[in-house]
Amino acid sequence: MRDPIAFYFDFMSPYAYIGSVGIEQVAARHGREVDWRPILLGITVNKVMGLKGVADTPLKRDYVRRDLPRLAHYLGVPFHRAKDTPMSPLPAARAFLWLKDCDPVLGKAFGQAVFRAQWAQARDMSTASDLASLGRSMGIDSTALIAATESEAIKQRLKDEVSAAIDVGVFGAPTFVIDGEMFWGADRLAMVEHWIETGGW
Amino acid sequence: MRDPIAFYFDFMSPYAYIGSVGIEQVAARHGREVDWRPILLGITVNKVMGLKGVADTPLKRDYVRRDLPRLAHYLGVPFHRAKDTPMSPLPAARAFLWLKDCDPVLGKAFGQAVFRAQWAQARDMSTASDLASLGRSMGIDSTALIAATESEAIKQRLKDEVSAAIDVGVFGAPTFVIDGEMFWGADRLAMVEHWIETGGW
Repeated sequence: MRDPIAFYFDFMSPYAYIGSVGIEQVAARHGREVDWRPILLGITVNKVMGLKGVADTPLKRDYVRRDLPRLAHYLGVPFHRAKDTPMSPLPAARAFLWLKDCDPVLGKAFGQAVFRAQWAQARDMSTASDLASLGRSMGIDSTALIAATESEAIKQRLKDEVSAAIDVGVFGAPTFVIDGEMFWGADRLAMVEHWIETGGW
Repeated sequence: MRDPIAFYFDFMSPYAYIGSVGIEQVAARHGREVDWRPILLGITVNKVMGLKGVADTPLKRDYVRRDLPRLAHYLGVPFHRAKDTPMSPLPAARAFLWLKDCDPVLGKAFGQAVFRAQWAQARDMSTASDLASLGRSMGIDSTALIAATESEAIKQRLKDEVSAAIDVGVFGAPTFVIDGEMFWGADRLAMVEHWIETGGW
């Protein structure tokens, strides 16, 4: 049994959404598990790296708007974004961690549903009530879910996750770590698969 | 006759070197020409976008050091970097433009030789005399080449190239523009080829 592939993501990143679909497909083809690890780009990119976000970067912002649907189509991933205002990822990351700790399988299914709602169904998953209503449709206790988004223990749990990711060198999303090797970007999926197939080079 | 593929590059970028090899292979498979257009990342990234360079960005800098030889190997591109101090790209960009304006075929061959020397043979191509000695081995007049790197007309020509690139939205390197569609990154080569094959989507 090899270690699962670590998949670092932020729900606010559409590239992480595209990567979430792709890495599960790659892992399934090679009998590998994927461990979903939430990070916060607002911390890793802005605070640690001292860089502006894409939305605050001229030229790149316009390019990314065009590149996202094009890349999603190329990779066969459903994509439909609602608007350009950024998603607020904190409640979703906390709800995800809470569920993952209770039930890893349900946690991942919820994470996939949040990504799909946000980036393929053009719904805004920024608030606890948006997430509770999505959770309800999956049989998840919405009162407990809302409470988890405000829990001090879960807030700390997320901070620890972000610190742990930074400690291993993660800065962006999606990031995949396979047998100790780190790959950043949805556009690295073909190389990731080649790495798994060949055992690396 | 369709327009050539525009290839925007900076000699200081190892990803642009990898992209320069890849885009010529893609173009050759589809009977397309590639027009090499030098830009300066120090202007597009730092001044226009207000971002730090990779070398000044924690975590990403370490990642890129590992990613470059790995990506080059994956794409079958010879890669050997000498050291981590950045190349100074101004003399090379000016010498390239001078040669391209005199003789486009020789200009491209010289550009390819500069990239290869810098990123596959671990030579430093930062100075006019480095470039003149490379040029001499290709039968290029080294006195004229050195003069070109100090010519006010060529300096202005390069500034105009950078401005024209920014005007069409180019910010990073390598950037490929195919029939009006822009792609950024050596990791987009497979998608670029699919775009050419299918006529786009």
